[in-house]
Amino acid sequence: MDLWYTESHTDHVRFSLQVKEHLFTGESAFQKLDILDTYEYGKLMTLDGLVMVTEKDEFVYHDMIVHVSMAVNPDIKNVLVIGGGDGGTVRELMKYPNIVHVDMVEIDKLVVDAARKYFPAVSCEVDNPRVTVLYEDGIKFIKGKEAVYDLILIDSTDPIGPGEGLFTTEFYSDCYAALTENGILINQNETPVYEKFFEVGISSNKKLKKMFPSVHVYQANIPTYPGGYWLFNFASKKYHPINDLKEDQWNGLNIKTKYYNTDLHKGCFALPNYVKEKIEHGTF
Amino acid sequence: MDLWYTESHTDHVRFSLQVKEHLFTGESAFQKLDILDTYEYGKLMTLDGLVMVTEKDEFVYHDMIVHVSMAVNPDIKNVLVIGGGDGGTVRELMKYPNIVHVDMVEIDKLVVDAARKYFPAVSCEVDNPRVTVLYEDGIKFIKGKEAVYDLILIDSTDPIGPGEGLFTTEFYSDCYAALTENGILINQNETPVYEKFFEVGISSNKKLKKMFPSVHVYQANIPTYPGGYWLFNFASKKYHPINDLKEDQWNGLNIKTKYYNTDLHKGCFALPNYVKEKIEHGTF
Repeated sequence: MDLWYTESHTDHVRFSLQVKEHLFTGESAFQKLDILDTYEYGKLMTLDGLVMVTEKDEFVYHDMIVHVSMAVNPDIKNVLVIGGGDGGTVRELMKYPNIVHVDMVEIDKLVVDAARKYFPAVSCEVDNPRVTVLYEDGIKFIKGKEAVYDLILIDSTDPIGPGEGLFTTEFYSDCYAALTENGILINQNETPVYEKFFEVGISSNKKLKKMFPSVHVYQANIPTYPGGYWLFNFASKKYHPINDLKEDQWNGLNIKTKYYNTDLHKGCFALPNYVKEKIEHGTF
Repeated sequence: MDLWYTESHTDHVRFSLQVKEHLFTGESAFQKLDILDTYEYGKLMTLDGLVMVTEKDEFVYHDMIVHVSMAVNPDIKNVLVIGGGDGGTVRELMKYPNIVHVDMVEIDKLVVDAARKYFPAVSCEVDNPRVTVLYEDGIKFIKGKEAVYDLILIDSTDPIGPGEGLFTTEFYSDCYAALTENGILINQNETPVYEKFFEVGISSNKKLKKMFPSVHVYQANIPTYPGGYWLFNFASKKYHPINDLKEDQWNGLNIKTKYYNTDLHKGCFALPNYVKEKIEHGTF
């Protein structure tokens, strides 16, 4: 059988992967989840039909959502992950012996269960004693928390469905309060290649800038995401992402990474003009 | 009519764009050429069914094949472009008043003719008096030339069909001889995302390293190319691409670019570990 999975990146752009086997389909109260075994990218998880994780390129996203902040403040002790049910973000965090505790607040238990079964190399650290997995709504979870986390990673889906409330000023404001004075917040911030995604990214960046004194955008090449090109926000109460990079300290940790390194750290904040100017001035 | 163009990035990965109109199809002695008008990327040129240029994202490739070398040596006077029939590379070169002359050696007149008609904003400088367009085989053209060009840009297709001879040691050796002592050579060097492309890129890089004392790989995000992620080789007899960057001088030229800037110049050489280590050591 010639079986293909297709994601529509826009109404006019499609990305398709040939499938060996449709391994699982399920639906939670929040979303539809499918696991496919593909020829080129290995196993793949979709939520509501959109690629979340593939075995072949998940390392890019997980390296970049975690290590950039950790190399700015390798002394981070308490971390909150919002979303991240596949476990990849937690796996990277567990490489730091200094981290005392991670709360992973994933609204959808189905994502964690499916990752445990089909992505053991991604979910391998969710049972680490330093990790607490809470099946709760991150928006409600964070309300009222004050200065408890050194790092918040918003490892969310796009702002459609359960991810929607994770792109609001109210939520960012709650995150700000929940962060310590050294606090850093990172969120995935969509692709600049297609307008509908970039508008979300620009809006998220603007909202964060109203709260945090230091907000900077960085980039990574994620082949299975729309445009193959993804942005993240780095928002901090105190740190500049490059001037405060602890290059020697991070390299001294000897953490094995497949994408991230401290030269790339400095490079990933250097955005193309069309991205930089649209983020800074709203036009290009 | 619901019309879609599809490129197979590998046997198992397809990228598809919805088409408003199939504007042109033609065949030369060298290849098949089609022009499509797409909804998302505007007009698109394919050679043998593979995307070469789209109106929406051509600026990335053309900025990155030209400005990196020019910012290292803004005094470049004589340039050879091999391929580049769409004219985008020449358009960027013509932004430098210091450049005295460009030879553009394109084997296939059909590419230039089609670009003139369908991509006026790309081909707009091919008739500049500082440019000579030669419809010749670049491999033969370069033979026997000695120290005549300060810069050679290999703006080729993949090494299948007419592009094949542009990835050989013999050709690079002829380029080396044709370069002045300040000479820089840039070639497009495929994507690291898919093995069949990356093998070509690694091989090209190795061949150049046997000749040039300074060979460095840099990267760009080109959404319509396989993996959305493309590499280039910077090879020079003399210059280091970052240590010798003439940042102030280049910025003083006030050249308008949509992708390139001198911060990005420094950033684009910082490769992910999986790319860097495979290029340097052959494995990851």
